[in-house]
Amino acid sequence: MEKILSVPTLADILATHEAIQPYIHRTPVMTSQSLDELSGARLFFKCENFQKIGAFKMRGAMSAALRLTDAEKAGGLATHSSGNHAQAVARAAKILNVPAYIVMPDNAPEVKQTGTRAYGAEIIFCKPTLEARETTLNEVVAKTGAAFIHPFDNYDVIAGQATSARELFEEGPLFDAVIAPIGGGGLMSGTALATHYLVPEARVYGAEPKAVDDAWRSKKSGHIELNTSTDTIADGLKTNLSEKTFDIINRLVNDIFTVSEEEIVNAMRLIWERMKIVVEPSCAVPFAAILANPGPFAGKKVGIILTGGNVDMAKLPFLGN
Amino acid sequence: MEKILSVPTLADILATHEAIQPYIHRTPVMTSQSLDELSGARLFFKCENFQKIGAFKMRGAMSAALRLTDAEKAGGLATHSSGNHAQAVARAAKILNVPAYIVMPDNAPEVKQTGTRAYGAEIIFCKPTLEARETTLNEVVAKTGAAFIHPFDNYDVIAGQATSARELFEEGPLFDAVIAPIGGGGLMSGTALATHYLVPEARVYGAEPKAVDDAWRSKKSGHIELNTSTDTIADGLKTNLSEKTFDIINRLVNDIFTVSEEEIVNAMRLIWERMKIVVEPSCAVPFAAILANPGPFAGKKVGIILTGGNVDMAKLPFLGN
Repeated sequence: MEKILSVPTLADILATHEAIQPYIHRTPVMTSQSLDELSGARLFFKCENFQKIGAFKMRGAMSAALRLTDAEKAGGLATHSSGNHAQAVARAAKILNVPAYIVMPDNAPEVKQTGTRAYGAEIIFCKPTLEARETTLNEVVAKTGAAFIHPFDNYDVIAGQATSARELFEEGPLFDAVIAPIGGGGLMSGTALATHYLVPEARVYGAEPKAVDDAWRSKKSGHIELNTSTDTIADGLKTNLSEKTFDIINRLVNDIFTVSEEEIVNAMRLIWERMKIVVEPSCAVPFAAILANPGPFAGKKVGIILTGGNVDMAKLPFLGN
Repeated sequence: MEKILSVPTLADILATHEAIQPYIHRTPVMTSQSLDELSGARLFFKCENFQKIGAFKMRGAMSAALRLTDAEKAGGLATHSSGNHAQAVARAAKILNVPAYIVMPDNAPEVKQTGTRAYGAEIIFCKPTLEARETTLNEVVAKTGAAFIHPFDNYDVIAGQATSARELFEEGPLFDAVIAPIGGGGLMSGTALATHYLVPEARVYGAEPKAVDDAWRSKKSGHIELNTSTDTIADGLKTNLSEKTFDIINRLVNDIFTVSEEEIVNAMRLIWERMKIVVEPSCAVPFAAILANPGPFAGKKVGIILTGGNVDMAKLPFLGN
């Protein structure tokens, strides 16, 4: 399979979906009468928390891994990630039968370290700054010859993330709107592209924590804005956009909502209590945005990507309520 | 539909299933590669945590409610329950458009009180003893003329609970064994009956907390033994067996396993972390039993009834790990 060198086309997304299918779950689409009543919308949750490695990241990592030449993958796979992309690259390397080198900030959640090691990857710790990540990654790549799979600034990865929305559209009704959380923007870009091609009449929304509202500010200013803090419970959404993801999001996302930490925890708790599923704080963000901004969603059929379910059970935010 | 006056037959179970289907979800059967590896068995989880009201109890309550005559149900429905059966009877009454009166111990979990009230039921609190429950219930019935739906000592209820295993058998492979938790024994009786009729070659196992091991002792002694404490996190399993459930369990259950509180919490955490679903402590008990007693399950295809998912998120047992 050829690498994707410009914004993925519909054909790119469909070919990617076919290629990665043996390595991913087709995750269920769940509905909840109780959350529909609460939100005033008709919600269709695409449950990527049930995906392999517990998150949608498996789609993008596998898409990129399958496009590497024999020479490129001979030295193994490498990436930097504090979370689900680490596990996804680790599992992709295991499938390709090559080593994986994961650069991780030394404050990465225990559950994600354990998950990454369980796939046989080697973890190289660094300080929790973007600069330290990149320097350490470059050292690892120089030393091992491993192929770097960027978590989102990579069209192969974006095409992989787009397959989640593609499956949602195959099973759901004709959607009025689709909403996804925005971290680095890989899932949002893929979701926006899939919607653009497959349900062009649907509105595309993004959601992110107020504490890391770089995408909201970027869309407003017209260029990439950076987060000055990373103080949010939604640990998957701390990253800034990249050139590739900003370009797609700027063109195809209709609006971005921001939500408070309290709104995130409340939405997460509602999903756990009413739907009986375990989701990460990051994927409660779109539902929190709908609850806080019911207007555009009232009576609408809305697709929501629930991104993952890798949560440290010893550090849940529900206590004291 | 006629009331069931002796041990439910296969025809009774099938007729019940058809009658209650409009009012229940067909819950999914989930598998987990990771938990299979951990247990050494091939596990098929029947996810009643996704059932209406969040637990299998909806099946039995609806089965009994649909069999009431117009005269019987005119005064409403009544029951005593600290938990899921309360919500089930409340919802059944709402469907029948009659009032519901629920006698509940004053220490019942907040989440279950809220759920019961949400269906429009009236809660009458009593002291948390079996005697207080029964006295209060009798008073309520005398005053209102409501029809009492016993949580388990009722063949209509048992036939309803049997429909969960029936669905499991329709979707799963040819099972070697089936395992369910034992509280009052309604689910266990129904599961044992369905297995006896539909997969007679499969072994039938029960599981309960060591702290409330009345069923284990009853099966050993040949008569109903009572619990002297109710000191377990598995709040759905504190009840003693009844005449009807003991009779069926004594004849059809091959063996009963008991597990410690630590084993229950560990099993519950594994289900949450690996399967990404919210389950009550009670329904982690069978999986805990398999982990603690791998011998009889090694390499076997095992059906597990996950009974419910109504958990108070403010009182989770995972902290400090």
